[in-house]
Amino acid sequence: MQVPAGNLLKRINNPSDLKQFKEDELEQVCDELRQYIIDVVSVNGGHFAASLGVVELTVALQYVLNTPYDQLVWDVGHQAYGHKILTGRRDDFHTNRLHGGISGFPKRSESIYDTFGVGHSSTSISAALGMAVASQYKGETDRQHVAVIGDGSMTAGMAFEALNHAGIENSNLLVILNDNNMAIDPNVGALKEYLTDITTSKPYNRFRDDIANVLTKLSSIGPDAFKIAKKIEKSIKGTLLKKSNFFEALKFRYFGPVDGHDVKHLVKLLQDLREIPGPKLLHCITTKGKGYALAEKDQTKWHAPGLFDKITGEIKKTYYDKPQPPKYQDVFGHTIIELAEANPKIMGITPAMPSGCSLNLMMKAMPHRAFDVGIAEQHAVTFSAGLATQGLTPFCNIYSSFMQRAYDQVIHDVAIQNLNVVFCLDRAGFAGADGATHHGAYDLAYMRCIPNMTVAAPMNEEELRNLMYTAQLDNMGPFVIRYPRGNGVMVDWQRPMKAITVGKGRKVCDGEEVAILSIGAIGNEVVKATTALNEEGYYPAHYDIRFVKPLDADLLHEVFQKYPNVITVEDGCLEGGMGSAILEFMADNKYSANVVRLGIPDKVIEHGEQPELWAECGYDAASIAMQVKKSGITLNKHIIAS
Amino acid sequence: MQVPAGNLLKRINNPSDLKQFKEDELEQVCDELRQYIIDVVSVNGGHFAASLGVVELTVALQYVLNTPYDQLVWDVGHQAYGHKILTGRRDDFHTNRLHGGISGFPKRSESIYDTFGVGHSSTSISAALGMAVASQYKGETDRQHVAVIGDGSMTAGMAFEALNHAGIENSNLLVILNDNNMAIDPNVGALKEYLTDITTSKPYNRFRDDIANVLTKLSSIGPDAFKIAKKIEKSIKGTLLKKSNFFEALKFRYFGPVDGHDVKHLVKLLQDLREIPGPKLLHCITTKGKGYALAEKDQTKWHAPGLFDKITGEIKKTYYDKPQPPKYQDVFGHTIIELAEANPKIMGITPAMPSGCSLNLMMKAMPHRAFDVGIAEQHAVTFSAGLATQGLTPFCNIYSSFMQRAYDQVIHDVAIQNLNVVFCLDRAGFAGADGATHHGAYDLAYMRCIPNMTVAAPMNEEELRNLMYTAQLDNMGPFVIRYPRGNGVMVDWQRPMKAITVGKGRKVCDGEEVAILSIGAIGNEVVKATTALNEEGYYPAHYDIRFVKPLDADLLHEVFQKYPNVITVEDGCLEGGMGSAILEFMADNKYSANVVRLGIPDKVIEHGEQPELWAECGYDAASIAMQVKKSGITLNKHIIAS
Repeated sequence: MQVPAGNLLKRINNPSDLKQFKEDELEQVCDELRQYIIDVVSVNGGHFAASLGVVELTVALQYVLNTPYDQLVWDVGHQAYGHKILTGRRDDFHTNRLHGGISGFPKRSESIYDTFGVGHSSTSISAALGMAVASQYKGETDRQHVAVIGDGSMTAGMAFEALNHAGIENSNLLVILNDNNMAIDPNVGALKEYLTDITTSKPYNRFRDDIANVLTKLSSIGPDAFKIAKKIEKSIKGTLLKKSNFFEALKFRYFGPVDGHDVKHLVKLLQDLREIPGPKLLHCITTKGKGYALAEKDQTKWHAPGLFDKITGEIKKTYYDKPQPPKYQDVFGHTIIELAEANPKIMGITPAMPSGCSLNLMMKAMPHRAFDVGIAEQHAVTFSAGLATQGLTPFCNIYSSFMQRAYDQVIHDVAIQNLNVVFCLDRAGFAGADGATHHGAYDLAYMRCIPNMTVAAPMNEEELRNLMYTAQLDNMGPFVIRYPRGNGVMVDWQRPMKAITVGKGRKVCDGEEVAILSIGAIGNEVVKATTALNEEGYYPAHYDIRFVKPLDADLLHEVFQKYPNVITVEDGCLEGGMGSAILEFMADNKYSANVVRLGIPDKVIEHGEQPELWAECGYDAASIAMQVKKSGITLNKHIIAS
Repeated sequence: MQVPAGNLLKRINNPSDLKQFKEDELEQVCDELRQYIIDVVSVNGGHFAASLGVVELTVALQYVLNTPYDQLVWDVGHQAYGHKILTGRRDDFHTNRLHGGISGFPKRSESIYDTFGVGHSSTSISAALGMAVASQYKGETDRQHVAVIGDGSMTAGMAFEALNHAGIENSNLLVILNDNNMAIDPNVGALKEYLTDITTSKPYNRFRDDIANVLTKLSSIGPDAFKIAKKIEKSIKGTLLKKSNFFEALKFRYFGPVDGHDVKHLVKLLQDLREIPGPKLLHCITTKGKGYALAEKDQTKWHAPGLFDKITGEIKKTYYDKPQPPKYQDVFGHTIIELAEANPKIMGITPAMPSGCSLNLMMKAMPHRAFDVGIAEQHAVTFSAGLATQGLTPFCNIYSSFMQRAYDQVIHDVAIQNLNVVFCLDRAGFAGADGATHHGAYDLAYMRCIPNMTVAAPMNEEELRNLMYTAQLDNMGPFVIRYPRGNGVMVDWQRPMKAITVGKGRKVCDGEEVAILSIGAIGNEVVKATTALNEEGYYPAHYDIRFVKPLDADLLHEVFQKYPNVITVEDGCLEGGMGSAILEFMADNKYSANVVRLGIPDKVIEHGEQPELWAECGYDAASIAMQVKKSGITLNKHIIAS
């Protein structure tokens, strides 16, 4: 839904329009920009609190920088709505995150102002340094390069790797640390505590206490000495806060902390910083959700609240006549507690997604057994491996696309050592509105090639629970359970758990001529397809193979002995995925069948609702049914026979 | 070759034997341990300088700690030879890195003293923290957990992620920073400079200069004031070096820097540190190669020098009557310079492997266009992506198994944005003596599932040059070139380069009944096999498919139309690899053939020479020839026909 923009904002079609305003008018621009974000997101949905927190920073940066010549990289991109609105996308902003609409993240193909596509965290310093070094190489000495990164993103290792390199390159790089004490959930870790310390001058205070006695003695000598003592104190304060700084240790010039909501001061600072060569960091204190009281108060809830009444703050919910199936996330969250209550070996680990994956339930119920380790997927996996060496059974919950960050740790630290770590890959398959960067498209392919690994996917909530139960049994080795974002299919899901034999699939329905093999929740689209086909008089069989590794040899022998046509369906990439595993089995066992593989094709798929994307890629229920018919299955066979 | 150990060393079969010695005897133990490493490595080969540098640390740790109850994690493990010798493997040490012998790295299945398998860098703090948190959970309050990590390893992001988490866990963790200013090549980056600064007290010196005038004035007031001024100076020195410290910022208690070669002092320190709870870091200054003068002088050369005369220091080389083929590494190193001289867009990037991958040649020839970014694969890839956004063409050279560290960055920052980054994956296929952690087994599978990606492998040096030439042409998008460790097959390799059509393979030899499809340098084993088979009267065809993505459809149509038997050969994992890509083509195009896939089976393969491992896995020339015969190929067909 399109909504009107304020008087100044509606005149801003690109940053050069913004530059026409006087500095005194910028506060009003900020107010209008903030209001526009509230107006549009409340009726269209999307990420919310992060963009409100950087309104002033966004306006100041576009006012001072000469974008797109100057290059601005937003880390993650949750917070870039203001950036999008000021850079030509105000009137398209209501299509944000919709199928065919603009992306919820900066994206190079969308705008020349989007210098680097983001979505995952902590890439901005590396990317901006690459740009800065390129400019240096080309002799573009006047060009500015700015990375805006949150304190949450700063906890990921690659941000540190980039700082470590940038500190010794004499390129024109400004890192703006957008310090709001939050990731999606509250930020955690030593660096976060440090940032709070320097914001509140704690190191200086501690230091002052340490030498207070000495200065007191000095002062007692006389008025001259007192003056000198004050001078020393001032000098120490300045020097200690500068030279002793974490970022100064990494050879950055550190500036701040400053109020990130004072737009005029930010403009002044950014103008000054333009003149200072080399790597520098500006520490801005901001409030996530700034300007929308409820969001300021509950920042996690308002990270991406869905639709809401902007006046009352009531978050809109769909009300149903009867109970609905739960989210897979909640099934995970409740089930790990159930399991952990019975099995003291179980621990829970999440890299900064406690509310997203529902480990927050366990963190609350069993604080000593559940850990948010920050945006640190690599550490999350190897920390889990360390726990596993001591006989514990960690459940490490990481979104499928974020697990790409810890691929080496999965191989090197867990699989090669055959440790009992359970990987729960949330957001497997299409992630929906978050788009290309967030789709969990590759996990079946990149996990099944690893030795010692078990790779499974549940078709429903009960199966998820049973797989979790199975994975925590002794000596299971590394065990992947992938499941999608969103709701399951069972209302009555909280049933007693039981073990599933590793590597055993199941027959969902018998049939003739054609067998459909699916893995995971996309199997429910197959059920829809077979139900519709049955009504038309077609009777394909359906098997849920459950485990892409190890494969169920008995089941597959039955399939290839009985069915000349096989259709594989997976919510994952076709190259090397489940369908390829089936082809490997077929070739290794000298079977020959007409195999059609359905799944994510070999291209970048953008954002949209999951059913829209399944249809786009040809594996929603209708497409599956069409493929069954295309295989030449006989019509009305049963009806004619009866 | 077994060599005798010294008088004390030969009495040490495990750490409890070491504890029987008096502290005064430890220096002699160190001398003997160092000598034993020199004696054995000089005649058997292996990593050298790193272990010499930690002899005293190793002895002191085993003397003070109660291993294996106390847990000691060595980062990377290059330096753990002393550890192995003291923990029951003295008499097996001469089998180090040999096929069937002990591993060159700590390995859990080898010894209870090897708490965590390593090989890749920077995992030790995460793993040790996992162990420490497990101990805390179990109430084992007396248990010590120690990670020994080099300053080079400290540049990788995951070490920072672990520090950030460890700083807020109150667990019993000691990190020993083994600061020798080196990775394999000299360490780089801001942190390295910082460590040098604090070792030389530079922050203090700078600070002192800043307030020198004030103190001078104070002193002029009188002798009392002078005394107080000195007191202030002392207090400032102590406080500044403690509180302002990088590691203190991350909530570690920092101790040091100390001399890492003073074994008695180390024993004392480690005893004291046992009593201090919470996360703590001991900064030890060591010399890589300590005690072997030549190694101290040229630490990169002596990282793993091969066999040498321990007296003269002459590194043993095999002398040949005629010129030998070069290493693929050197072909890369020389070719990138040739290309960069003609194409100003080309840049070179390596994460801490300049001498290993031969980018050091370009770093010397074109220092502004070639970058060692430290052990930081993630940053290396995204930094390359940043360069590529500016129209440059980075060649990012990363060992195949280390690229697992940057998998997300390849997908998220390069492939989704379709940027022109060339990935040269060195050490693809079996890495040889480095073993399981270093085999480049998975890259074909994990790269070919990524959209926009081109994935190629050269069969010889000329092909490597031509692929590099092709990859730097305009608008190629992300382009992977994988090649093995070690020597090629062409003496006359430095030929003029020409473009290869992307996705085109080549026929190596025509044949009948059986077609062998290979990718990359393992194709030379196929040539050996077909040559031998021809002599026996068998004539299989051989195709080098060159590109696993995109596949050569014309070539594959020819193969499947002409040959009922197809054998695929790859130096990579069978699950999802090149053979699977061929099966996908076959299924998608409704062909039916008897396909046998040869490659790395689904298990962890240990160390050994490449030919030993190919034979073990059934794809050396002899095994390939046997498979051809097993396919039922007709004997002597041509001979009978002629």
